[in-house]
Amino acid sequence: MTGIQIKQVTKNYGKKKILKPIDCELQPGKIYGLLGRNGAGKSTLLSLLANRIFPTSGEILVDDQNAIDNAQALGKIYLMSEKDLYPASQSLEQLMRGTELLYGKFNFQLAYDLAGEFELNLQQKFGKLSTGYRSIFKLITALATPVQYLLLDEPTLGLDANHRDLVYQAIMDDYLKHHRTVVIATHLIDEVANLMEHVLIIDHGDLVLNGETEDILANAHLIVGPAKDVAKYTDGFNIIGQETLGRITGYYVYGPLDDQRILPDTVSIEQTNLQKLFVYLTNNQGGIGK
Amino acid sequence: MTGIQIKQVTKNYGKKKILKPIDCELQPGKIYGLLGRNGAGKSTLLSLLANRIFPTSGEILVDDQNAIDNAQALGKIYLMSEKDLYPASQSLEQLMRGTELLYGKFNFQLAYDLAGEFELNLQQKFGKLSTGYRSIFKLITALATPVQYLLLDEPTLGLDANHRDLVYQAIMDDYLKHHRTVVIATHLIDEVANLMEHVLIIDHGDLVLNGETEDILANAHLIVGPAKDVAKYTDGFNIIGQETLGRITGYYVYGPLDDQRILPDTVSIEQTNLQKLFVYLTNNQGGIGK
Repeated sequence: MTGIQIKQVTKNYGKKKILKPIDCELQPGKIYGLLGRNGAGKSTLLSLLANRIFPTSGEILVDDQNAIDNAQALGKIYLMSEKDLYPASQSLEQLMRGTELLYGKFNFQLAYDLAGEFELNLQQKFGKLSTGYRSIFKLITALATPVQYLLLDEPTLGLDANHRDLVYQAIMDDYLKHHRTVVIATHLIDEVANLMEHVLIIDHGDLVLNGETEDILANAHLIVGPAKDVAKYTDGFNIIGQETLGRITGYYVYGPLDDQRILPDTVSIEQTNLQKLFVYLTNNQGGIGK
Repeated sequence: MTGIQIKQVTKNYGKKKILKPIDCELQPGKIYGLLGRNGAGKSTLLSLLANRIFPTSGEILVDDQNAIDNAQALGKIYLMSEKDLYPASQSLEQLMRGTELLYGKFNFQLAYDLAGEFELNLQQKFGKLSTGYRSIFKLITALATPVQYLLLDEPTLGLDANHRDLVYQAIMDDYLKHHRTVVIATHLIDEVANLMEHVLIIDHGDLVLNGETEDILANAHLIVGPAKDVAKYTDGFNIIGQETLGRITGYYVYGPLDDQRILPDTVSIEQTNLQKLFVYLTNNQGGIGK
């Protein structure tokens, strides 16, 4: 069985439960969006997948092999991390050669092409880069490492709007060529909504949503109209949020609507987007102060 | 004369000109947006204002006093930097006490209140914080330091949408209470457009736009219609960008329109926003590969 299986994985730091049992699967050749509030556990999950830390319990299988300290399994996974783990005094080109040594392969042509597009000089030292250019360098290195599973933690951290577009384009180009599995963890949900085929939402260490983007959006509705009529029509539905504008009220409903129920003339059903859905699914409890 | 005067300030690193002569003024009690692409020179300008680095030429006056190594002038300025300059092993509360020592004053009540809102535990060590929570801690420390000039470099770096809203709210609350000068450097232009009274756009080390947000938006137009009609109507205007959708073309124009010219029925004039204006004003040349 190919893909990554995450089976009943938990992670504690001391008494703090960062991840509750998580079960999910990353299928080959698919782009995943990993969404969650600050401190929800996204980076912890990615670090577990990349074997940088170990689960407290449960197991992770990569193409049917246990990933812990398994060089063959780990050679298939690359994590572009939020953290800067590179020595400041080395040049970017030296760091890329180091990555080649570790993974046994590296697409220098692609790296040079992308460095040109982003106007990044590879002779510079890592320590001299601004936050934005650190993200750019780390993304280029990730895309040029020809592994099967690519994990990108905040690939657009500190990037301007034009550069963010370039990043999304580079991810998409790579995906169309190599069809590998890509996991993108990000807070800029609207911008990547079109890239993601599958959405994973983590909240307080729990996987609260796991589904195809298309199915999820088909189940997300905004019911708009006078408060009384909206309340009556949505009675018993899974209401996750509410907004008011003057005398008009909007209820966000996640889940199927009742086909038998008659929609009053004053009420309309509108599509909502992933960002709104995310906000309401993760809003109530706030962050965990990690 | 109160406020900060930036007079013919340049900054070179070796042969690289990061800032060309910059002239501008930061008036008391105003919120400024400092916008620019990655590598444009925003962080360099902020570091100069905070005296962390020195200009190659030119001078910076704070309330009429030269800022270089002038303790009185510098005690009025606080820079929340993108860089993490704190020792990883100290607790957040210890770091706040250190800031109090440096500035002689610190609003612990506000810091505790904001830490509660963001669910940030101040007994933690700085090194244990995620990227998002580092931003949150740095912003809280900045807001609680009662200086007159507050410089915020990417205050929402790595923050989720709900936390970004909390940050904007905290900046606004502080502003309404203390009416100090705030400079916000950010890439999420749409989100802060309503906060900024005055916009500064830096491109390749040049100050290319410096004006009141209201005036700037009044001068930014999108002219939409069939390509031929739009081209004819806008002939001679300051066209900064163009978009096409099927047979409809939109020209972005920055500057006054000609009142004498008759608008064809097929063409309409629409408002544009700051993000679009920024993209087109800074798009052509790309980043400088800093």
